[in-house]
Amino acid sequence: MRKIAILGSTGSIGRQTLDVVRAFPDRLRVVALAANRNARLLETQLKQFQPKLFYCSAKAEADYGAEFLPMEEIASHAEVDLVVVATAGKAGLTPTVAALQAGKTVALASKEVLVMAGEIVVDEASIHGARILPVDSEHSAVWQCLQGEKSKPRQLFLTASGGPFYRYSPSQLAGVTPKSALRHPVWRMGTRITIDSATLMNKGLEVIEAHWLFSFPFDSIRVLIHPQSIVHSMVEFVDGSIKAQLGWPDMRLPIQYALSYPERWANSELPRLDWNKSQSLEFEPVDYERFPSVKLAIEAGRLGGTYPAVLCAADEVAVELFLAGKIAFTDVPKVVATVLEHHKSVSRPSLNEILAADAWAREYALRLCPTGGKNLARELGHEEKE
Amino acid sequence: MRKIAILGSTGSIGRQTLDVVRAFPDRLRVVALAANRNARLLETQLKQFQPKLFYCSAKAEADYGAEFLPMEEIASHAEVDLVVVATAGKAGLTPTVAALQAGKTVALASKEVLVMAGEIVVDEASIHGARILPVDSEHSAVWQCLQGEKSKPRQLFLTASGGPFYRYSPSQLAGVTPKSALRHPVWRMGTRITIDSATLMNKGLEVIEAHWLFSFPFDSIRVLIHPQSIVHSMVEFVDGSIKAQLGWPDMRLPIQYALSYPERWANSELPRLDWNKSQSLEFEPVDYERFPSVKLAIEAGRLGGTYPAVLCAADEVAVELFLAGKIAFTDVPKVVATVLEHHKSVSRPSLNEILAADAWAREYALRLCPTGGKNLARELGHEEKE
Repeated sequence: MRKIAILGSTGSIGRQTLDVVRAFPDRLRVVALAANRNARLLETQLKQFQPKLFYCSAKAEADYGAEFLPMEEIASHAEVDLVVVATAGKAGLTPTVAALQAGKTVALASKEVLVMAGEIVVDEASIHGARILPVDSEHSAVWQCLQGEKSKPRQLFLTASGGPFYRYSPSQLAGVTPKSALRHPVWRMGTRITIDSATLMNKGLEVIEAHWLFSFPFDSIRVLIHPQSIVHSMVEFVDGSIKAQLGWPDMRLPIQYALSYPERWANSELPRLDWNKSQSLEFEPVDYERFPSVKLAIEAGRLGGTYPAVLCAADEVAVELFLAGKIAFTDVPKVVATVLEHHKSVSRPSLNEILAADAWAREYALRLCPTGGKNLARELGHEEKE
Repeated sequence: MRKIAILGSTGSIGRQTLDVVRAFPDRLRVVALAANRNARLLETQLKQFQPKLFYCSAKAEADYGAEFLPMEEIASHAEVDLVVVATAGKAGLTPTVAALQAGKTVALASKEVLVMAGEIVVDEASIHGARILPVDSEHSAVWQCLQGEKSKPRQLFLTASGGPFYRYSPSQLAGVTPKSALRHPVWRMGTRITIDSATLMNKGLEVIEAHWLFSFPFDSIRVLIHPQSIVHSMVEFVDGSIKAQLGWPDMRLPIQYALSYPERWANSELPRLDWNKSQSLEFEPVDYERFPSVKLAIEAGRLGGTYPAVLCAADEVAVELFLAGKIAFTDVPKVVATVLEHHKSVSRPSLNEILAADAWAREYALRLCPTGGKNLARELGHEEKE
């Protein structure tokens, strides 16, 4: 029986993690649930799973006998074997570090944790002999492909659906509305990650994540556009042999793999690929002209220091500005690039320095756009759109 | 330094094995070479690789200091660590058994060995703690995908290029000439395997081979048409996750993997896939109406006993009859089916019983066609072609 804590249980990954738990009542037990503001859904989850511990930033009392604890204490609690970190933004950072320092296994779904503080997180895991298991479908795929391999691989290929606008011309991209951008063709996800998928910034963040998870140099991580989202990623070995992991795009599969590892469990609720139908799997290189975000992310990752945290924070603000109708879709990477250009990075930063860089980047990004686009247009060097 | 014997060194796989040895002079040493009739090429190989032992059915003396020994004695010789069995037809059968009985690792490229005598071969390996490593690209792919997996997989997908005639109509298939059939679109191989690839019988034999190599029930082995021959095979696990092995179609890669296992070695001579170009990988189910050979093979494999040996022998004769212009391309599976129908199988056969069934099947297949097609046409129930 694996005793798990789910941080971010009311979000998309959190809810799907509970779906997996529901399918394996004899193998998985929820001992803690933590949510941010969705107290109502959390109450329902507490009622159903009866964990000992909970956290909710909106409500410190529960009707179902669970004890309230801060996320850092949940993550390092003696009752917990494995911590699923599925929080949004930087909320998972300190709980992840706390879990690793307590030697817990962390199933990591929050990419911000490794993007912002990869070096610290990986160091803590190594010092305390704790494991970080990927939950993102791409990183789970890489991890699955690496099983049992003795030799260091040569190259990783992270696949990207390309999002709904991959065939758009530059002027079509400039006209993308928040409404159309929120419809992702394959994955159902949170708001920010949906926009990040459309700009491909999500894939850029995943490159940084892969760098830390698999200690891979940035030069050996490539992104390929794969519109069908069936091949979740690939690994090339030194002999030129490539392994790929495929599956119906459903986050419950990589979530379950992290929970069942090193076993695999049969789960009839997981959809399977249908090979009685013809399948065509397409791959092509990324067009960095129209989708500059991946390069921005790789560059920030390569520079290191507080650059990746700034990339991540600036992108979050830029996405919000886009969703609020204040900037164009194509301005999102421009805002990020402008904030990165003005950043003075700290090398080998502490958590506090990372959080300070995060705060600076948010403020700077917002300052670019105080009046709904006028200043931003000037800063980014183009005329304001109306 | 791995000391290897190559049985069938002058054939396509044997020559490519020597290419791999040439690339790793510090890791691989050839201690024995064996050939059938190509004494001239064998002499060149003996000169270059200076092995201690050799065998040639056409010539019992060598000018280069090597000692002549029968293949069974080479395969079990104290100097040998690993035996590459790349002989044609049933020639590899007794040497493989001898190698396994001596506890040697066998890198198996001759599918007849497992098709004809799978149960005996697998039993000998298990009794003597010897390993059989696949060399066929499909089985190597499955083997690579299984590395590090703790749970038994659910399904294997063997891929098939479909050969040059996969889009042909039934009447076009009936008119296929030996000359056009010998041009395989992807792999350069021996004569029989090229025709077997065009009829898809080769894939049927590979299903039987996979059954024995991975102790997989026939119901869990599926064949998919994949014209690009980039994905060499796939494994589906119980959670629905699928792993695939991909690579440029070049036999030196699976040969090298069997020789380097569990490591992988960088080899700049092996071609790599170019992901700077767009790739489209297509998969579709097999049309068993036009290509009945796979089903014939699976059925023979399921029945067991001496049926698979008879399938293999009847097919070899039928291919020869086709190449001699005596029967049509579409008659090949009909000859095989007719011979199987008339066979009285022995269950749990000995090697001698298998060889007797093989001889019976060859004679029976030939008897179907004593005068260039007349009897055959009558036996197969259609008018003789001109």
